[in-house]
Order: sequence, then C-alpha cells, then structure tokens
Amino acid sequence: MEVKELVNRRIEVLKDKLVEKGLDTAIIIKPENVFYFSNFNPVINSHPCFVIISVKKGAHLLVHSIRCDHAKEEGSLDNVQLYGKWGANISLAMDPVDAIREILSHGPIKLGLELSDVNYKLYQDICTKLNISFIEDISVDVNMMRMIKDEYEISCARKSADLVDIGVETTIKYLQEGYSEACASTEGQYQMRKTWSKLYSNTEICGFGTSEGGIIDSFHVWCLSNEHIAYGCDCPKHYIPMAGDISLPMAWAKVNGYHAENERSIIVNKLDEKRDRAYKAMLEARQAVFDKMKPGITLESLYFEAVELFTKYGFGDILPGRIGHGMGCSAHEFPSIGKGVKIPLTAGMILTVEPGLMEKSWGGVRHSDTVLITENGYELLTKINNKCIIINK
Amino acid sequence: MEVKELVNRRIEVLKDKLVEKGLDTAIIIKPENVFYFSNFNPVINSHPCFVIISVKKGAHLLVHSIRCDHAKEEGSLDNVQLYGKWGANISLAMDPVDAIREILSHGPIKLGLELSDVNYKLYQDICTKLNISFIEDISVDVNMMRMIKDEYEISCARKSADLVDIGVETTIKYLQEGYSEACASTEGQYQMRKTWSKLYSNTEICGFGTSEGGIIDSFHVWCLSNEHIAYGCDCPKHYIPMAGDISLPMAWAKVNGYHAENERSIIVNKLDEKRDRAYKAMLEARQAVFDKMKPGITLESLYFEAVELFTKYGFGDILPGRIGHGMGCSAHEFPSIGKGVKIPLTAGMILTVEPGLMEKSWGGVRHSDTVLITENGYELLTKINNKCIIINK
Repeated sequence: MEVKELVNRRIEVLKDKLVEKGLDTAIIIKPENVFYFSNFNPVINSHPCFVIISVKKGAHLLVHSIRCDHAKEEGSLDNVQLYGKWGANISLAMDPVDAIREILSHGPIKLGLELSDVNYKLYQDICTKLNISFIEDISVDVNMMRMIKDEYEISCARKSADLVDIGVETTIKYLQEGYSEACASTEGQYQMRKTWSKLYSNTEICGFGTSEGGIIDSFHVWCLSNEHIAYGCDCPKHYIPMAGDISLPMAWAKVNGYHAENERSIIVNKLDEKRDRAYKAMLEARQAVFDKMKPGITLESLYFEAVELFTKYGFGDILPGRIGHGMGCSAHEFPSIGKGVKIPLTAGMILTVEPGLMEKSWGGVRHSDTVLITENGYELLTKINNKCIIINK
Repeated sequence: MEVKELVNRRIEVLKDKLVEKGLDTAIIIKPENVFYFSNFNPVINSHPCFVIISVKKGAHLLVHSIRCDHAKEEGSLDNVQLYGKWGANISLAMDPVDAIREILSHGPIKLGLELSDVNYKLYQDICTKLNISFIEDISVDVNMMRMIKDEYEISCARKSADLVDIGVETTIKYLQEGYSEACASTEGQYQMRKTWSKLYSNTEICGFGTSEGGIIDSFHVWCLSNEHIAYGCDCPKHYIPMAGDISLPMAWAKVNGYHAENERSIIVNKLDEKRDRAYKAMLEARQAVFDKMKPGITLESLYFEAVELFTKYGFGDILPGRIGHGMGCSAHEFPSIGKGVKIPLTAGMILTVEPGLMEKSWGGVRHSDTVLITENGYELLTKINNKCIIINK
C-alpha cells in the first residue's frame, strides 16, 4: 500500500476515535504525530506544523509559509494551508490559530488535543480564537495508534536496524583497534552514512527537533565505559577502553522517519567478579524475556522476568525502572516494558529489549535490540551478535 | 569566571526579575532553559528535567532518578533532587510535580512559568498539586536573558564556529571533486568530528532533544541545490551538482551546548541571468547589513537594508520573512532580524546574518554567518570566504 493511502487510513482511524469520544475535530501539534498523520517532516520546527482533522471536513496540513513547497511536494495530504509570511506564498493568516479558524467551520467545536504536548499559550489561543464547546485529551489515543506499525513503517525500521547494526559493529572494530570511545563512534557514524548512500540513497534520515532546532542527520553513535554507563546517556569521551573495562557502544538511526537502536556491552579482556556477574545476569534476563515474547503476554510480565533474574544474581537493590520501550517515529515512545503496564504484546509492535543494570561504583551492563512482535512470537530487526562480546587488547 | 559562578549569576538575575514581576518562584521546563540555569543536559528528554528557582529557597535541579549521577556530577547546581524510580537512588516522589511540592514551601506560590513551553497537562498538574496564588509568563524574560551571551558562552560558540567552518569547507571541497550533496556532507561531518577530537576533545557536543528523543551528536552538515533550496531545510539528496547549479552546503555544531552555523551558496561554473542576479543581490544585501551592524541599531532596520537591496534587484515580490535570528543554546532562538523587531543590537548578542532569496522556479541563494555583536561593531565567528564562491567542473 502507498504511504499516502496508509496515512489516509490513519486519519480515518483517528476520525472514528473522535466520533467514539464525542468529538468532531482534532488539532495535532506534536512533531512526531504531525508526521504520522501527514508523512511530512519540516526538519526544523521553529515554525510549528499542524494537522487539522475534522470528521466532516477531512484533514489539512497547516505549515508556515517557508515550508510551502516542501509540504505540498513531500507531504501526503492534498490540503496544504499556510500561515505566516515568506516569499510570494499566500497565507490564510499571519498567526497559525487564526489560520485554523479559517479552515474550520465557525460552529462550536468539540476538540481533541494532545494535552501532554500542546503548550499552554497555544492552548489559550485555541480557546480564545476558536469557538470551542469542549476539549478532550487525545494523547493516549494517538500513542495507542502509533504503537502498532503497518508494513511501510516496519520496512523503514528494518532499514534503520540494518544501519545501527553497522554503526555498532564498526565501533566495536575500532575499539578493538585501540580507538577512543569518541573516535570509534566517529567511525561508526561515518560507516552508517556511507552505507546509507550505498543501499538506501532514495531515503531521508532526518529526525524531529525541538521548537528551537532540528535533526538533519538522525545517525548517532556513542559509547560509554564503566562508571560513565551509569549516566544512562551522554557524549562519548576520548577515553581508550582497557583490560577489565565494560564499554557500551550504542547507535540510533531513523530512515524515512522510523527509528531503530542497537546497544552492545563489550568485555575488554576479562571482567572482575561483580561486572562479570552483572553481565551474566543481563544475558540470562534477556533470554528469559525473549523466551516469553509472543502476542498476548503483558509488558509487565516481561519486566518481572528480568527482575527475577536480576534478583537471583544479587542485584535486587538496583533494579531498572523499565527494561525496554516502544519505538517508531521516536527513540523513546509509548509504552514502557515496566511494572504496571498491562498492555499485551501485539503483532506489529516494535520495542527495544534492554534489561540493564547500572550503578556508579562498578558501571553498568546492557544490550539493546530492536524487536518486532510477529503473529507467532518476535523477530530481531537488529541482527549482530547479542550474546557475550569480548575484545582482547 | 567559572561556569558554576556564571550559572549562579543567571539565577540571581532571574530572581531579580521574579521580584520585579511580583513573583517568588519559577519552574523552568524547556530543555534549553534548564541547561541555561544548571549547565546540565540530560541529552535524552523522555524523563524531563526541571530547575526550580525560589527567591527564598534558592535553585534546585530536579531530574528523573535515572539521571542522578549525571546531574550531580556534571550539573552546576548543588541541590539536585530526584523523582521516579531507577536503581537504588532515593527520590522525593514518583511524579515530578509531587517532588516539586516537597521542594517548595507550602505557602501560596506566585509562580513564573514558560507558558509558551509548558504543556497543558503539566500546567494543570502544577495548578492542582501546588498551592498557587497566581501564574505569570516568564518565557520572554528568559529569552531576553539568553539573548546576551557571557564570555563562557562566547568561547563555546567560537569553537562551534571553527567546526562549522570546517564542515562547510570540507563539503565544498568534495562537491568540487564530484561527490553528491549527501556524500560531500558525510565527509564534512566526518571532518568536523575528527577536528573535534583533535582540538576540543574535552568538550561535549550533544544537543537538546524532544520529549521522545535526544541529540547525541549535534554536528550536522547538509546541502541542497537549485529548486530544493526553496524547501528551506531538508535531507540532502544523492544529487551531483553540475554546471549552472547553485548548491548550498550548510553546517551546524554545538560545543558544550552553544551553537554556530555556516551556510554558503556555491556557483557551479556559471549561473544563468536570474540566479546570477539573485546571488549579486544577496552579496550586496549582506554588505549593506554588515555596514550597519553596531550596538544601538535595531534589528528591524537591518532587515530593511536587505529589503531595499532585494527590491532594487527585482526581487521585491519574494522577500524573506527574516534575514537572521539569535542563536546560543539553540539553532533558532529569540530574536528575529525582521520587520517589527525594535530591539537594538547589543554587545554580546550572537546572531546569524543570512539575507536570502528563494523561489521554487529557479532555486535560492543565501550565505549564513554566525556573528557576535561587539562594543564597537561586530565580529564574524565563522571565518571562511563569504563572498562569491565558484567551483568549476
């Protein structure tokens, strides 16, 4: 199915949700969700984009005038409207909410909004300038929709997974050769870019930025070692891992808007007892989780599998808050694999599986794979060695 | 002055602003602003960070438990508090607003919030869970503070400017050698990373992400040609520029949280009459702007300088919405160099100067420099050739 058709299908599903909730209109503002309902990424978000979905009037993509050609040519929606002033383009209004008023009927609107994302000032503008009868939150509804991927989304994530495999594999190779965390990561990123050009040159690799910036290249490789792993995420340092270290190269990529990640904990020569025990606990916890992964199993129960193993290995006092999460348009999306999450695994979900341990005193350990839930179980989209990885120096 | 001292000075300035506005507390939530008031970047923002500034109780950095070690060791604030659960760290509460209630006194709070950034759900939680007597917007106050950079911020921006110079220069070299936009950009990014490792290996190069992601490597090089320039920003294509083309390589970098950009329009061999005229108009408009740049001149009047030249050259019908903007923690920050912006140039501002023209039918043209306003005029932080640049093929 063409992307355009898939996007239209998503819009129809949201319309049904709106009707179900007694709503007639949605204004979508979160960059990842705007992309989901339009296949348009402005890359830079300092002039925000909106998808306005009206049960009666269909879907409109509203962008700043500077994004006019881009939105009309690369977005999937036929209705593109403009606000603001740039060049000779004709806009509905200078202000986006004034433009939305032009698009929607003047009758009282029963509005769905992503209340976890819309900023207060915009919310106020919407209440003041539009004829609103009531507003309800649709953040969770959109999150639930995004949770199950369609074939196109899966095909993009597969490409991203290929690239993060290359990023991490290359970084491990250069760590082995004596490069620092930062310099090995540089080579990993470089190799990802080159592979993109070779295999997927007709795709885009931008990400979704904040209101003050953008992500033009979504390929990130980084690497943390030992106690630095306890930071969770950080800039790699110019540290050269040595015997006894755990080093953790990580890679992210987003092909045509869909994300994958790969993380691998590397043993340099040999670990001391505690690190070694943590590494074994991590591998066993992963196996226990994978053994249980199939449609119907709740996310919470996967978390408890890992908890049981970590506790058995003596790490019950430093349990992680979650052992994985959804991904798709984003690196970290709904839902978490954690306590209290009763959502059942469902075919089409893409999740990270990354039960990990970390503590300042000795470091941390974690592999992360990008995993697709299938009808009968799961498929690893990231495919490089995810068992015990040792480099010798 | 040490970063810690500078951050404390910023907090004191904000406290004075709060008192001036009849407020006693600020809750800072925008990632760039959290960094500004703490020198802490969690890199991944799926668990948001907060700086709570109380006129009476001082400043607190509130982070998710997973960011505990990172925040305590690399942030500039002595008071670090936690919410949520990860490992053995002890948190004030599971929910961040519950944690804020523990930090602040129970008396009625006169609260300053970034109303253009705080999401509606968080705003509601704050109103429900804290004892608020009233809330006022402080977005503009913080923007105004960030507008004038201190010596440390300028020193970081200088390094970023060095790196974007290298990114664009390298990309031009590879375009000349026959590489595609995307492949030449890959070499530009690679060279920036290598130069970072060589010259600035003790710095960090992360950016500020959305609530669903992060920017681990802020170095971006991209390149658009001809009609693609009219998109404003996009992923580079695997197109090899040829005689008659305008090609526009661009680079971003952020060293220790401070941004610079460089953009150069490249003539491949020779342009047709319209593109050539646009290129000349752009260079002359830039000169007119630079000739006027010194403290006291309003941003609007710089915009009108460019408008006059563009109109003289016959492009009065496709005027840009602005010809530059502030930068610092972000690529695009307050204020714009545009119509109606009466703010005077002030020593310590860092701005892009990028009067440009773009139109789908023939393409676009724009150089962008990162410029520091000094006591007597301005200083170009980006230093590579910003006149007429021709490559021959």
